[in-house]
Amino acid sequence: MTAEFEQAAQGLIAAGRLLYANGWVPAASGNFSARLSDGRLAVTVSGRHKGRLTADDILLADASGRSLDARRPSAETQLHVQIYRRFPRARAVLHPHSVNATLLSRLCAGDLILQDYELLKAFPGIDTHQCAVRVPVFPNDQDIERLAARVEARMAALDAPVQGYLLGGHGFYTWGDSLEDALRRLEAFEFLFECEMRLRGITHP
Amino acid sequence: MTAEFEQAAQGLIAAGRLLYANGWVPAASGNFSARLSDGRLAVTVSGRHKGRLTADDILLADASGRSLDARRPSAETQLHVQIYRRFPRARAVLHPHSVNATLLSRLCAGDLILQDYELLKAFPGIDTHQCAVRVPVFPNDQDIERLAARVEARMAALDAPVQGYLLGGHGFYTWGDSLEDALRRLEAFEFLFECEMRLRGITHP
Amino acid sequence: MTAEFEQAAQGLIAAGRLLYANGWVPAASGNFSARLSDGRLAVTVSGRHKGRLTADDILLADASGRSLDARRPSAETQLHVQIYRRFPRARAVLHPHSVNATLLSRLCAGDLILQDYELLKAFPGIDTHQCAVRVPVFPNDQDIERLAARVEARMAALDAPVQGYLLGGHGFYTWGDSLEDALRRLEAFEFLFECEMRLRGITHP
Amino acid sequence: MTAEFEQAAQGLIAAGRLLYANGWVPAASGNFSARLSDGRLAVTVSGRHKGRLTADDILLADASGRSLDARRPSAETQLHVQIYRRFPRARAVLHPHSVNATLLSRLCAGDLILQDYELLKAFPGIDTHQCAVRVPVFPNDQDIERLAARVEARMAALDAPVQGYLLGGHGFYTWGDSLEDALRRLEAFEFLFECEMRLRGITHP
Repeated sequence: MTAEFEQAAQGLIAAGRLLYANGWVPAASGNFSARLSDGRLAVTVSGRHKGRLTADDILLADASGRSLDARRPSAETQLHVQIYRRFPRARAVLHPHSVNATLLSRLCAGDLILQDYELLKAFPGIDTHQCAVRVPVFPNDQDIERLAARVEARMAALDAPVQGYLLGGHGFYTWGDSLEDALRRLEAFEFLFECEMRLRGITHP
Repeated sequence: MTAEFEQAAQGLIAAGRLLYANGWVPAASGNFSARLSDGRLAVTVSGRHKGRLTADDILLADASGRSLDARRPSAETQLHVQIYRRFPRARAVLHPHSVNATLLSRLCAGDLILQDYELLKAFPGIDTHQCAVRVPVFPNDQDIERLAARVEARMAALDAPVQGYLLGGHGFYTWGDSLEDALRRLEAFEFLFECEMRLRGITHP
Repeated sequence: MTAEFEQAAQGLIAAGRLLYANGWVPAASGNFSARLSDGRLAVTVSGRHKGRLTADDILLADASGRSLDARRPSAETQLHVQIYRRFPRARAVLHPHSVNATLLSRLCAGDLILQDYELLKAFPGIDTHQCAVRVPVFPNDQDIERLAARVEARMAALDAPVQGYLLGGHGFYTWGDSLEDALRRLEAFEFLFECEMRLRGITHP
Repeated sequence: MTAEFEQAAQGLIAAGRLLYANGWVPAASGNFSARLSDGRLAVTVSGRHKGRLTADDILLADASGRSLDARRPSAETQLHVQIYRRFPRARAVLHPHSVNATLLSRLCAGDLILQDYELLKAFPGIDTHQCAVRVPVFPNDQDIERLAARVEARMAALDAPVQGYLLGGHGFYTWGDSLEDALRRLEAFEFLFECEMRLRGITHP
């Protein structure tokens, strides 16, 4: 294992603790990855608890997501691979599994549209609250290859770049040019999801 | 006391701190146990605060739940014994007392049905979100023997194996083949209970 | 200062940190006291932040609540004195200022009645969920002497012993035969207040 | 750099950690400043994560908010300067970006009026709950000079001194005669915002 892999693994371990402390990866849910400079991936091993990751819970995979040792990567690794292929600068992919993401993906009839929030400026290329960020919502699917193909087709068809997407009853995917960047986007999205959920609980007299 | 008992006790103490930090065992509520390899039980002593357990707060009981020293085990120990008898592989039983479990058990007219959540896959034997997990809801009862008999009769009558059950205004019981396994199920259920409670607060325009 | 006073002060300091971590004493709100074996009181100094108390923030007062040094005790010390006089075994009084207590005291038309909760058994003398615990609600009043007299008159008139009371838009008072006992009651009440507030947010279809 | 600047910077770093732990400055949002005795300002550098500030993330600016080194101060520094000019005794300005402040600023048709809360006494000059505190709400604006002028005009026109104000979909500004004082006000406002948001979620039968 290279020093770069070990550093990436340490970053994913720390991210897991941070997300778990916020309640965003309960009960071994969620998965994370980082892309190394040679294109290979550091990926969480399938089924491990993300709040208590150790170095043994991160494996090295090739650029197609195939494990380079005997351990099995997270079942949804092909969703990570799709993101890395579409966004050449992406270096980290995070899949949290929060209550808000789970519920919003079930409550939205179509895509989720976020607008008129100052925090939208946390996303790259956005410098005003006067815009609308579209978060695609996909139905959940246990066939990950088919799901990855559907995500790819949708991203190819949209005009504006996607910053993250929701899976029905399943959580959320986002990414960034670095792990720090991905974590900032994730925090921004979770804040906005909380806002959207709270608005749905307001009783108008 | 054996090393196995001491290890089990340390596990229950750590579980208590984790559950208390989440607000799931307030004010000395809740109780926990572990089954040792010889069938005897490590059980929390009655009335102790679960967030601040010490070795003195865990006693050794026989397989029927009778204390093997002068201390009194949790009042609901017979509910643990019923679970260990029905599920020969169960090694840990956890009874948290969260706000969500307390309220859902009062709001549900019959059993609670959980469906279309990816996190259902955290439960053994479930590999798709396209299923329904039934969580039996029993009326609360201060007669624990009678309550244990009612739980046993219901479990015997149901087709699918039960993963946990709710007591009216009282909380929740779950278990696992190890303490870690029981904690994972507990986190999954608490996540799903939070989802269900939030959905009941949504205002449809 | 005696060792007993210093131990009582350390207990109040630790209680402050615990309550603040739960969000129950924001912005220097709340006040605490302990009664020493000679009847004198350890009381929080007026205006100090309860989450960051030091030994300098606890003063010694006589049984009437008069400071025995130059510092001024919490403005509501007479409410503590009323409790100590009515309950000879009380050794600690806690006044948290939580969101739930603040809102419930405004939303209740009369007293708050808590029933059918297993956690009611956390209160002394209660051994079943099939009972009703009355929590008196008093209108807020800046005249503390007048407020203490109103609390005393109400307690004298009620049949069942009071376990705690709410002040309109102001928070909650509870107590116990020891600081640990008062903290257990406080945790139980805050849990039940959270339950009651959540029930008021449920949307019935 | 002077010892006074370094002490001010350490205070802002600690404040950032406290606010982040409460979820009030997600994803690099928010900004803070302190005024030194010579009128110069310690200001957070633009775009830094407020929960993980280091000494390198605080710069020295003149009284007009112009950076005295190569780093760029927070984009909203002119809002801090307006506050320091209007309130000669102000020594700290805090801009958190909480869910409650974000939503209240969107839900209020006009200003937010807070009344009948004991915690209003946390604000200077208020000694009873029987009063009304007006929190002006301004529409969000990416033109900070224009926004600062609008805030100044409104403050000049109001009879009572303003203790803080909301920006539409953007968060909250408050200040104090010391950092500790500003933090106490901020905690009081966030508590009151939480109360106001919860009241808007109550379902009346």
